[in-house]
Amino acid sequence: MDYLLAAVDLGSNSFRLSIGRVVQQDGIAQIYAIDRLKESVRLAAGLGDDKIICEAAIQRAITVLKRFGERLDGFHPNRVRAVATNTFRIARNAAEILPRAEEALGFPIEVIAGQEEARLIFSGITNELPPSANRRLMIDIGGGSTEVIIGKGFQPLHLSSLYMGCVSYTRQFFPDGRITESRMQQAQLAARRELEGISRQYRKTGWQEAYGSSGTAKGLLAILTEGGMSRKGITLDGMEQLKAKLIKDGRVIMSELPGLKHDRSLVLAGGLAIMMAAFQELKIKLMLPGEGALRVGVLYDLLGRDSQHDKRDETVRQFMKRYHVDTRQSDRVKRAALEFFAQLDLQDGPEKQELARTLGWAANLHEIGISIAHADYHKHSAYILEHADMPGFSNDDQAVLALFALGHQGKIGKLQVLEPTRAKWLTLFCLRLAVLLSRRRDDPESLPITIKANGKSIRVSADRSWLAAHPLTEYSLQAEKREWHKAGFEFELAEI
Amino acid sequence: MDYLLAAVDLGSNSFRLSIGRVVQQDGIAQIYAIDRLKESVRLAAGLGDDKIICEAAIQRAITVLKRFGERLDGFHPNRVRAVATNTFRIARNAAEILPRAEEALGFPIEVIAGQEEARLIFSGITNELPPSANRRLMIDIGGGSTEVIIGKGFQPLHLSSLYMGCVSYTRQFFPDGRITESRMQQAQLAARRELEGISRQYRKTGWQEAYGSSGTAKGLLAILTEGGMSRKGITLDGMEQLKAKLIKDGRVIMSELPGLKHDRSLVLAGGLAIMMAAFQELKIKLMLPGEGALRVGVLYDLLGRDSQHDKRDETVRQFMKRYHVDTRQSDRVKRAALEFFAQLDLQDGPEKQELARTLGWAANLHEIGISIAHADYHKHSAYILEHADMPGFSNDDQAVLALFALGHQGKIGKLQVLEPTRAKWLTLFCLRLAVLLSRRRDDPESLPITIKANGKSIRVSADRSWLAAHPLTEYSLQAEKREWHKAGFEFELAEI
Repeated sequence: MDYLLAAVDLGSNSFRLSIGRVVQQDGIAQIYAIDRLKESVRLAAGLGDDKIICEAAIQRAITVLKRFGERLDGFHPNRVRAVATNTFRIARNAAEILPRAEEALGFPIEVIAGQEEARLIFSGITNELPPSANRRLMIDIGGGSTEVIIGKGFQPLHLSSLYMGCVSYTRQFFPDGRITESRMQQAQLAARRELEGISRQYRKTGWQEAYGSSGTAKGLLAILTEGGMSRKGITLDGMEQLKAKLIKDGRVIMSELPGLKHDRSLVLAGGLAIMMAAFQELKIKLMLPGEGALRVGVLYDLLGRDSQHDKRDETVRQFMKRYHVDTRQSDRVKRAALEFFAQLDLQDGPEKQELARTLGWAANLHEIGISIAHADYHKHSAYILEHADMPGFSNDDQAVLALFALGHQGKIGKLQVLEPTRAKWLTLFCLRLAVLLSRRRDDPESLPITIKANGKSIRVSADRSWLAAHPLTEYSLQAEKREWHKAGFEFELAEI
Repeated sequence: MDYLLAAVDLGSNSFRLSIGRVVQQDGIAQIYAIDRLKESVRLAAGLGDDKIICEAAIQRAITVLKRFGERLDGFHPNRVRAVATNTFRIARNAAEILPRAEEALGFPIEVIAGQEEARLIFSGITNELPPSANRRLMIDIGGGSTEVIIGKGFQPLHLSSLYMGCVSYTRQFFPDGRITESRMQQAQLAARRELEGISRQYRKTGWQEAYGSSGTAKGLLAILTEGGMSRKGITLDGMEQLKAKLIKDGRVIMSELPGLKHDRSLVLAGGLAIMMAAFQELKIKLMLPGEGALRVGVLYDLLGRDSQHDKRDETVRQFMKRYHVDTRQSDRVKRAALEFFAQLDLQDGPEKQELARTLGWAANLHEIGISIAHADYHKHSAYILEHADMPGFSNDDQAVLALFALGHQGKIGKLQVLEPTRAKWLTLFCLRLAVLLSRRRDDPESLPITIKANGKSIRVSADRSWLAAHPLTEYSLQAEKREWHKAGFEFELAEI
């Protein structure tokens, strides 16, 4: 029953590949790491002021991803999840790079939001620590973003993703590598300012243990302990000594800092400034190393999807509650939409399964925009689905949900710029038809309507006498015909 | 103590001016109409398929507004409210027409959302009807939109604004004035389809009395009763007779329809189709005429603003609750922002008062976007404020709130396209400064900071030793300097 799962983490500083073996013990699934690869790519350093990743950095990324792809050859797509973080979130040419990166890796890559990153990091570190009833603070200083989390057990209490990282800060405050007192102070102040908005809340909740994951924490820990600046863990006092030395030397002298690796030396100054700011703002006394982080969190999330405990179902449930969804209506729409979906000619496989799940979630959530305003609520639904923090969903997942919400009523010609695949168009069709037939928000008699798709043509067959008794439905179906024609589909309404 | 208030209603079919005298009776203010003007403008008929209002229609509007403006000469701006409805909501050249219209009228004109229109109509009709414990259905078929409301006492229970009107439907389904059975059926089906989404909910709530306001209801009532097609009120049976006659004649023959006025005859067919659809979908038995509607609702809203019972305060309170605003933080920001606002050099008067209120509301609501996601929450706040149904607020009011929410943190250069006035820039400055100083979400000691604005320069004076003890604040103020420079303001930070 054991099998392998793989996670790829395309970070702003380094890319990582983790392969884990899933082992069932006493009915609980655990993941044991069996292989790990880590490569420094420093993608964030290739990001210009214009927010364009330069070609050299892209090449570094592609080379590494090809290597990873080789290792992953033969993995089932359902057992691999590749996530990209801050640099992909902000790069203006991310959309052009992703297809190249996916081709090199051989698997789809999902760009995830900062909150989702924080959630996965929390899950990853927690799964690698012994169980405890303590509240735990976790800080993950990445290349372009820093995640700060408090959690208890497997329950995150605060999740934040701040817009600062060791690569971007080194680049911004120490562009030529020279380290001065005033530069260090500016960097620390900038970082404290980012933390200022969350520090009070975090301190109020409090914690008993603090962990640092990511290369910055590990690098600092090695330098401080091996250099005698700290006896155990990271301390503010130890970092003050390191800072004084860096300022005195005016730069990072590797040979004088035992424990420091070359890759880390390039982004040490920015990482140190951020970590010191975190200690000051949050009043951290001692930080211990946390293992696992994002890549392990991704593995456990994959495990959840596999074992029918998909985090996304829980998120959808919470959203339905938060936005006061009329559940009887959304159930009605969902039931009808999935019934039509089953009649489509899509090829069986993981892609179809995923699309069916997405259709179900879209049916659950298509009316959440009513919470903002009834007029144009489909646009508000799409806005929320695109921008909200949705645990378990990648940005791409959310984009598809938003597409379905936006297209579930009204004009659909406007969706063409998003270039949906045929499968997505047809899935949207199922949703629209279900919404159209549920407009009365009434529990319908069973619907004497079937659909059949063939290439770019859709045929809707409806019982003649039923249709005659439902002139409004017929009118709506005729209007639908015109819409789908605009989207490039032939739509035939057959009375049988 | 008596005084006059005036409301101008720029409808899609006709423009109306109402002047009311406010009379205090037993501590309750009542409004007595003392003057009414109504002019047919048929603005919606001047709206092409490209959603551009043609110049001829604009000229008709300007001519009428000049006439209204003459009557309103000498009124205090706080005692006049002009609202524009559906055609202004949808016309693509509305932004160009409004300044011309405002110049002709001599007072600002607010474009209001459909829900707000429905709320004001409900208030207007209710204030003109005798008190009753019954639930009341109200239908107002305008030129471009139809409002459907159920309310009890002064409490609206359902408010809907549907995208269909007597002018737009006549134009769409009877373009050359010819009336046939199939055209009438298409128009009715289209209208029923609009109503289908709300009919179940409305029927479930139910009502004991139905009222029709607007010219369509009054016109139908006159035709049906004077022509002997109904004994009292509007009935489906009476309308069936009228419809049969129109189809038989193939057009509206005025001389054969006693009670019909020329203006009404031009939009009768579309109005009849919508009214019949409403009777069918909602199962209305009898409809009586409702007086007042939008213009009276606007007068009572003005009265509320005057007497310190501004509907908008209540809306802001509800929004703070709905979006789980951290009220201690918003109070903190509000207090500081208004303190700075008082130090500005703005000219005293109604405009300054209104801006101060808006600043207070913006401080209350600037964080509502956190309900969607913490990342970029200022953008989500602005989105909600721009699109939500906010009773009492016009679209323009909401646009200003959205501007303040969007600009309360982050970059402000992007706001320049919205061309804020100097007063709005400075008001935004007060909000930003208050937010910046409240970042710790901590109750601050009193702030040793004052501001002084002069032309396009802003001087912030801060106590030197306080600033030295608050390096993060100083850092943030320095960053602020750069931002305001981009917005074209000189910003000086003086240590005193």
